This record gives sequence, C-alpha cells and structure tokens, in this order.
Amino acid sequence: MFNLKNYLHQKQAAINKALDENLNRPSAMSKRIVSAMNHSIMAGGKRLRPILCIAACEIVGGNEENCITTACALEMIHTYSLIHDDLPAMDNDELRRGKPTCHIAFDEATAILAGDALLTLGFQLLSRNSSKLSGAEALQKLDIIHRIAVAAGCEGMIAGQMLDILSEGKKLEIEELKQLHMSKTGALIEASVYAGAVLGNGTASQIANLRDYARNIGLAFQVADDILNIEGDPFFMGKAVGTDNDRHKSTYPSLIGIEASKRFADELIANALKSLEAFHMEAEPLRVIARYIVERKK
Amino acid sequence: MFNLKNYLHQKQAAINKALDENLNRPSAMSKRIVSAMNHSIMAGGKRLRPILCIAACEIVGGNEENCITTACALEMIHTYSLIHDDLPAMDNDELRRGKPTCHIAFDEATAILAGDALLTLGFQLLSRNSSKLSGAEALQKLDIIHRIAVAAGCEGMIAGQMLDILSEGKKLEIEELKQLHMSKTGALIEASVYAGAVLGNGTASQIANLRDYARNIGLAFQVADDILNIEGDPFFMGKAVGTDNDRHKSTYPSLIGIEASKRFADELIANALKSLEAFHMEAEPLRVIARYIVERKK
Repeated sequence: MFNLKNYLHQKQAAINKALDENLNRPSAMSKRIVSAMNHSIMAGGKRLRPILCIAACEIVGGNEENCITTACALEMIHTYSLIHDDLPAMDNDELRRGKPTCHIAFDEATAILAGDALLTLGFQLLSRNSSKLSGAEALQKLDIIHRIAVAAGCEGMIAGQMLDILSEGKKLEIEELKQLHMSKTGALIEASVYAGAVLGNGTASQIANLRDYARNIGLAFQVADDILNIEGDPFFMGKAVGTDNDRHKSTYPSLIGIEASKRFADELIANALKSLEAFHMEAEPLRVIARYIVERKK
Repeated sequence: MFNLKNYLHQKQAAINKALDENLNRPSAMSKRIVSAMNHSIMAGGKRLRPILCIAACEIVGGNEENCITTACALEMIHTYSLIHDDLPAMDNDELRRGKPTCHIAFDEATAILAGDALLTLGFQLLSRNSSKLSGAEALQKLDIIHRIAVAAGCEGMIAGQMLDILSEGKKLEIEELKQLHMSKTGALIEASVYAGAVLGNGTASQIANLRDYARNIGLAFQVADDILNIEGDPFFMGKAVGTDNDRHKSTYPSLIGIEASKRFADELIANALKSLEAFHMEAEPLRVIARYIVERKK
C-alpha cells in the first residue's frame, strides 16, 4: 500500500539535498546573502511544489533526475515570495514555520536581497547546462521557463499578492477571492505540475489532465489554509492563528461560512481526483497528496 | 560622421517603444503593479544596457530585431535593481532621475512587488515564443538567460549591492571596491554586450573582445559616477550630489583621490577602445559610447 509519509520523506530528502548543493557553492560572493537564502529555504517547508513537479514527471514515465533541478528552482521561487510577503511593508510576519522570518533573523535589506537572489537563482538553475542539451530539450526548457515566469509574475503570483494587500479590510466577492488565490498560489502550483509532466515527456492529454488536477488542489490548498487559520493549532502550524480575522481579510470562511468552505474544499479535491481517472496506480501519490491537502494540520 | 546624440535618440526611441509594448498588455491583472513598473521604467533612464546589447548585435552583423526583446529584458532587470536599491531599508533614496522613486510615488509594498515583477517579466521576455524557434536558437537563448541570471544574481549584481550596504562607513581596499563594482554594475553590462553579440551570431573572438570592452566601460562608468557624485551638477543629474561622502561610502575619489580617479577612468576607456581594435567603422558607436561614459554630465 502507498505510504504518504514515507513518500514525502523520501522526496523531501532528495529535494533538500539538491537545494543544499545548489545553494552552497564556493563561488557565492556574499556569505551573508547565502546565509539568509539558506535560513529561509531550509526552514522546514513542505516542499509541495517540487514534490508535485517530481510526482507529475514520474507519473508520465520520467524520473527524479529529469526534473530535480527544476523542482529546486520552483522551491526557490516559492521561498522568495514568502520572504518578500513576510516583510514589514507587506504582511509584517515575524514567524514562519515556527522560526523567525528572514528580515527578523537578518534585516530588511538582507531579506529583500535574499528574496531577489532566490528568484534569480531559480531562473539560473532552469537555464543551466545548455551546452549539454539537444535542441529539442532546449525548446522544452525555454517553454518551462516561460510558463514559470508567467505564473510567478505580474499576471500570476505577484498580481495575487498585490490584490491580497489591496483587499485587506475589504469584502471581496467569492469570484474575486477565487481569482486572487488562483493567481497568488494556484498559478505556480499549476506550473510545477506542468513542468514535471513536460520534463517526463507526457502526452498533451496527460499534461492537460495533470494541470486540471493542479488547478483544483491549488485552490483547495488555499481554502484549507483559510480554515486552518481559524481551526488550526498554532503548535502544529508553527505560526499564529486567527490572523486573517484580525486583519479583516476576506477568506472562504468569512464569505461563505466554515461548513460551506469545507464542502467547497472537498468538492475541489473530488474534481482533482476526477482529473486523474485516466491514470492507474502510478497516480496514487497525487491522489493521496490531494486528500492530505484538506486533512493536514499545518 | 557618427553622431552620438542622434544614435542614442534613435535607439532610445526603439527601446522605449518596445518596453511600452511589453509592459502595457491588456492581460496584466493588477493595474497598480503595472503603473508602478511603468513609473520606474519610463522615468527617463539612459538605456545604457539595452543600447549596448543592440550595438554589440549590430557590430557583429545582426540587427535590432534580433535582440530588441532581450534588450528590453535587460532594462527591466536593471530597473528592478534600482527600485529595490532605492527602498528605505537599502539606500533610502527619494529621487531618481529627478522624479520620486517608486516607493515614494506608490508605497513600499508596491515598490517591492513592482521590482519583483520587472525581474520576473525580464525572464518571461527572454524565454518567450519558444514554439517559433529552432533548436539552435533555443540553445542560444538558454545560454543568454543563464548568463543574465548569473550576472544579476547572488554571484553578481545582488552580491554587489549587499557588499555595498555592508561596506558603508568602512574603508575598503581599492581591489575590494573594484570587485564590488564589477559585480554590482559590471556583470550585467558585460552580460548585455554578451547577449547582443551572441544573438548577432558573433564569432568567439568577437564575443571575447566585446566582453573585454564591456568589463572596462562597466568599471569606468562606476568610477565616473563616483566623480559625478562629487563634481556633478544636481540640476543635470536629477539627483542629489555629495551623498557618497555623507554616507561615508568608499569611492574611487575617497580612496585614491579625484585626479587619480580620472586617470583611472581614462585608462579603462583606453583599454576598452583597445578591445575594439579588430573592428572597423562598425564599432564606432561603441567607441563613442566609451568616451561619453567619462565625459557625461549625468
């Protein structure tokens, strides 16, 4: 039987090893920047995006080696966004995963630069070793870089964060909130799955199904986060709860109530599982991850 | 006879048009982010990096069309670095090119995100239209993306900015200062020329000569900036002078005196011109730009 805990541990270990190798190279000029990058990237993240990337790659017949560097790049881009979102000018968070946020452990200037450096290093990793690639592989890589840049940029993650800040204290429509989350977190999750599926040489229909899966779990992840911010245990979460309410943020529970939010999350997960119908046992990791997203405690 | 003023105007017009087209697309989700990106990128920059990119491309036989998108990406990456450097947590500058800096015109959160968005959009532009490229072209693009990411990242521009902040109030050795500037501004200038030369299909020796040219003018540009910070006219410069001294920053004039700094800049320009010896009249723009760098008033 498929064991999620073992699977996640094994993937996380591979990802952490690769992240460490890609971050701690002797040529890095500024030790302080590298320390700050390390502080945030090694703070015990779930590695959801790289795991989804690897899982998607393996499901269509690829292997970890095909996509581990891309997986690392995705985690770096995700981590940069967390560092910048935590800054005093943005969400002003002092704790993340139970540890001081980057600007608390270092200072604001270092945190801004460490974020910038992680984003840039992400693209550096995505484009490296071009001399060893075939033309077809290079075309694939360029396509992936472009999709990730679009997902992370001002039509995706950054637009979502801006909307999030601008809508603090305002009551959004449910469709606006959905749009906010689709861009803030959904786009990069979808790009992660897309990248893995492309690097594993998935067919067009496999890729379309996997993207559909990703869109659904991406939104479910956010709905579950909103619920955890009300019902979660700060001990397990490593961060404060009730903060959305304190900030008068529009959330699924605040707009449609907690029970309807839970039903919505379940519905999204059901849709995600439906997108995987064309796959057999090889998609079991993605199925279990989908269920885990709404059942997790942190 | 080659007329620098006309040349720069013509190139700047082409670059500004392309920047505008690439920034103001209807699909951009957050109007506020796009306004902030526009504010900083359309604030009247010299467009040095994109001009060098186009000039290098044309010198080896390419044309503007081959590299205008890459040139735009370089200007976006440069502009992102200015927005972040100006933030209160970094240099805390309120004026840039005579206009309010991004965080003054908008706010800190928007400025951080607009910088992030310009950096990301740079990589989005560099990787776009992959479906229209040949394998060989894709390999070339990947190589350029990688060089630009390295130049902009924690081994280049970001390391330079961190060192710059850390060395405020400290007296650096002249070699340390050189290293700081080579990474803070030199690396991206070199990458700009490299990208242009590669996209114009320059030979290995042409590319090597052009990179040598770029390294020399990149450093000369910084030495000239340090001199302008003492002798410049705030009216022409659109920003305050004397700020390096107020901040106890190590500069070429503070370490070796103003006369020796001017001699050093002249020497670097002479080296730059020497790197262009293998070229004929087609390299005239780069020669005149090299001289302009030390003679400019802003």
